[in-house]
Amino acid sequence: MKEQIHFSILHTDASTNARITTFETHHGVLETPVFMPVGTCATVKACTVDQLYDIGIPIILSNTYHLYLQPGDSIVREAGGLHSFMNWDRIILTDSGGFQIFSLSQMSKIHPNGVEFKSFRDGSSHFFTPEKTIAIQKNLGSDIMMPLDICTKFGTPQKEVEQSSKTTVQWAKMAKEAAKENENQILFGIVQGGFQVQSRQECMEQLKEIGFPGYSIGSLSVGEPREIFEEITEHLAPQLSNSPVYLMGVGDPYRILTAIGMGVDMFDCVLPTRIARNRTLFTRGGRITLTNKRFEKDFQPVEDTCECYTCKNYSRAYLRHLYKSDEILASTLGSIHNLHFLHQMIEDAKKAIRNNTYQQFMSSFLSSYEEGEKLRQQEKG
Amino acid sequence: MKEQIHFSILHTDASTNARITTFETHHGVLETPVFMPVGTCATVKACTVDQLYDIGIPIILSNTYHLYLQPGDSIVREAGGLHSFMNWDRIILTDSGGFQIFSLSQMSKIHPNGVEFKSFRDGSSHFFTPEKTIAIQKNLGSDIMMPLDICTKFGTPQKEVEQSSKTTVQWAKMAKEAAKENENQILFGIVQGGFQVQSRQECMEQLKEIGFPGYSIGSLSVGEPREIFEEITEHLAPQLSNSPVYLMGVGDPYRILTAIGMGVDMFDCVLPTRIARNRTLFTRGGRITLTNKRFEKDFQPVEDTCECYTCKNYSRAYLRHLYKSDEILASTLGSIHNLHFLHQMIEDAKKAIRNNTYQQFMSSFLSSYEEGEKLRQQEKG
Repeated sequence: MKEQIHFSILHTDASTNARITTFETHHGVLETPVFMPVGTCATVKACTVDQLYDIGIPIILSNTYHLYLQPGDSIVREAGGLHSFMNWDRIILTDSGGFQIFSLSQMSKIHPNGVEFKSFRDGSSHFFTPEKTIAIQKNLGSDIMMPLDICTKFGTPQKEVEQSSKTTVQWAKMAKEAAKENENQILFGIVQGGFQVQSRQECMEQLKEIGFPGYSIGSLSVGEPREIFEEITEHLAPQLSNSPVYLMGVGDPYRILTAIGMGVDMFDCVLPTRIARNRTLFTRGGRITLTNKRFEKDFQPVEDTCECYTCKNYSRAYLRHLYKSDEILASTLGSIHNLHFLHQMIEDAKKAIRNNTYQQFMSSFLSSYEEGEKLRQQEKG
Repeated sequence: MKEQIHFSILHTDASTNARITTFETHHGVLETPVFMPVGTCATVKACTVDQLYDIGIPIILSNTYHLYLQPGDSIVREAGGLHSFMNWDRIILTDSGGFQIFSLSQMSKIHPNGVEFKSFRDGSSHFFTPEKTIAIQKNLGSDIMMPLDICTKFGTPQKEVEQSSKTTVQWAKMAKEAAKENENQILFGIVQGGFQVQSRQECMEQLKEIGFPGYSIGSLSVGEPREIFEEITEHLAPQLSNSPVYLMGVGDPYRILTAIGMGVDMFDCVLPTRIARNRTLFTRGGRITLTNKRFEKDFQPVEDTCECYTCKNYSRAYLRHLYKSDEILASTLGSIHNLHFLHQMIEDAKKAIRNNTYQQFMSSFLSSYEEGEKLRQQEKG
């Protein structure tokens, strides 16, 4: 593993902690802030790689848990690694499988040296150790790896949170040891520690002592109130500012922009592609559900100002028709729009950071977006 | 309706009736032989229009029945017609809905002036007359329209076949009258008449008397033996050779190539995209089912010599993985390959026609293809 990465802070906004950074990976330099689309099973659902390249996506996330189960990481290795297998020549980050073990498996049991679980596909039994998840990610050949960790749900008793956090740190150390020969791969540390600042602080300090070229913040945006999310992010991010900071599993515009203002660099989430398959698209004025009757004769694009393939070529009425007809193309065109929306939002955020106007940009963006979301909730309620 | 079209026979093969023709439509000159992918609900399933353009597809077929029910042809008209609605700027042929009424609807009842049916979507009642299907197709703005017809299943009593054929001819006359003001649209006649040469002959003669700029052959490839299919096609096509000849609903390589040799110019079928969604891809050596275990570590493309997007970028192992994971991308990549396969097969057929070697080309192509299909059946059985 590369212990040191060439990490540069290109610009920090004057009045927030928002920043533009770059760091090197085996498949190119990554500029942040960045949102990573999720390609769970070696494909970002409903999109070709060319459609992602057209948007300008520089990095995707893929799931170790899923690829280990199907097709199996040894097959991906035989194919020449995940980049070659799925025909993606930009950067790939793989998670450790920890989150999926706890969220998808019918059974999971934590042992001191790893976690036992049953496959969500066929119920077969498996055991992941910190070393094993690194070995799998080595087979996948991702640029950025994650160590096996224990995710905590909101509401977990504090004593259990602290035990999990302690185990996560031990596993991180074992993962680092296991990864040391992976020359082309970077291993991040994952800060766990639940929903209290003190236990997060302890976990972070222990990880920094082990030393990683980048750090992620896990188990946030899992049901806790926004205040707790903000308190923990705001507390951790500045202390990690000498490295890339990755906030895992966050995809809604409010949390992304808020976290960027606190110094977070990287994000991933299934949200944009999942809601797109579920008939819902982002707009600057909040999300819209395309099957709504009011779009029946709406021959305008989803957003007038949007430059995505979908908005340049199709109307809301056409998308509504595709969703009503359960057409696959709806998922494709919707996913392209939603991924472009987040990508463009972050491009605009970068411009604001360069101009030292991030605070104004964020307030203005979120005031329009949240206003629309509020109306949407009222209409629903 | 354009009663006369500028139709040219560019070349006829020396030893078969295979030919290259062109004729003008409102969205460009169509060169035949040609296979039309089916875009039932204003989208060729799982493909973007750019993916179809990349293959070189010059014309698609879309379904009047489906678009009438959802989103409704008046909405398509308001969108500026089907071309504008679905962002397709090449040629579109729409069918009359006849086939769908009889194959999809829970109930259909033939009256002298039209057919009553219940929607397959919601069970609502509808009535199509020859005039109405033309009015709908006018709203859709397709380049080539079809008149309402009565499709006959293989095994229908001859008396009923003849009655249906008679009605089809009457309706064709009414459709022609209704279409006469549609300046930019061409109306073909549809030869029905079941599975006996004599009743087909009568239907064809009556239609020719009415006079259409092109003719299609309906209700073939609906379960009848190959010999009957060939007998009727071989009988009709040469007598229609002064106009474009369109054989409806035929998509398998054997029947396409055989019919081209008999002088048929146009084909359509859901087969290539439907089997692609069902894990099955065309190869020159017969169809293959990608989920087969033997492709697990097969890192070759579906076909070595294929120039399609899928074969240039992906392996059989990757496609197998996508199918096993129920990924949408499998349908997209599979459909691209299958549509390219038929498109390329016909491009190769055209080359052979120009070289007066169609017979050899067809024999060689089908010997390899049918051999593979035979083995496939044996493996299955």
